[in-house]
Amino acid sequence: MPNPKVNVGRVFHALGDPTRRAIVEKLSEGPLSVSRLATPLDITLTAVVQHLQVLEESGLVRTEKTGRVRTCRIETAGFSALEKWIRDRRSMWERRLDRLGDLLAESGEGE
Amino acid sequence: MPNPKVNVGRVFHALGDPTRRAIVEKLSEGPLSVSRLATPLDITLTAVVQHLQVLEESGLVRTEKTGRVRTCRIETAGFSALEKWIRDRRSMWERRLDRLGDLLAESGEGE
Repeated sequence: MPNPKVNVGRVFHALGDPTRRAIVEKLSEGPLSVSRLATPLDITLTAVVQHLQVLEESGLVRTEKTGRVRTCRIETAGFSALEKWIRDRRSMWERRLDRLGDLLAESGEGE
Repeated sequence: MPNPKVNVGRVFHALGDPTRRAIVEKLSEGPLSVSRLATPLDITLTAVVQHLQVLEESGLVRTEKTGRVRTCRIETAGFSALEKWIRDRRSMWERRLDRLGDLLAESGEGE
């Protein structure tokens, strides 16, 4: 079930940034600490933390602090909201194409 | 087949804007002329044309001019690129969860 708090506009905005997409791609392979995330991306910890905040607010990532380590992992709510938005659009235009197909078939029968 | 020219970053960026999402939502119901698009959105023709250009470059919309009328319709390439990006991420984390499940089952068998 998509999280009702997830705003699909925020999700699109969050994923419009290449570094944030790289973070999501990395976390899809498994949870990582903030510092383990920062190293291959070659950006500062501060920058990673800011990107993580945007990703958390969009429901794409969640983080959890245990002692001194903050672990980041994928949150599915943002993805579900994205998929729902795309599916809704697709179903609209496919329904329309079905109706067009029916109309064409009917006009063909009348010939 | 996703259009190889579609850049998923551009698609996310394009859909991060609420007016551009509204245009895509409107066109999902059927093709419209630029002026018919502008009226309910309550924005100038110039603004619609600029948004349409971003949507065209992202493979989400295509426009075609016949005489004096430019007709806009949904282009599926951008949507396919989005769906592929999400599907690839999902398959990564689902594969990882499957492996975790296998490991847990194996450790349970050993008890």
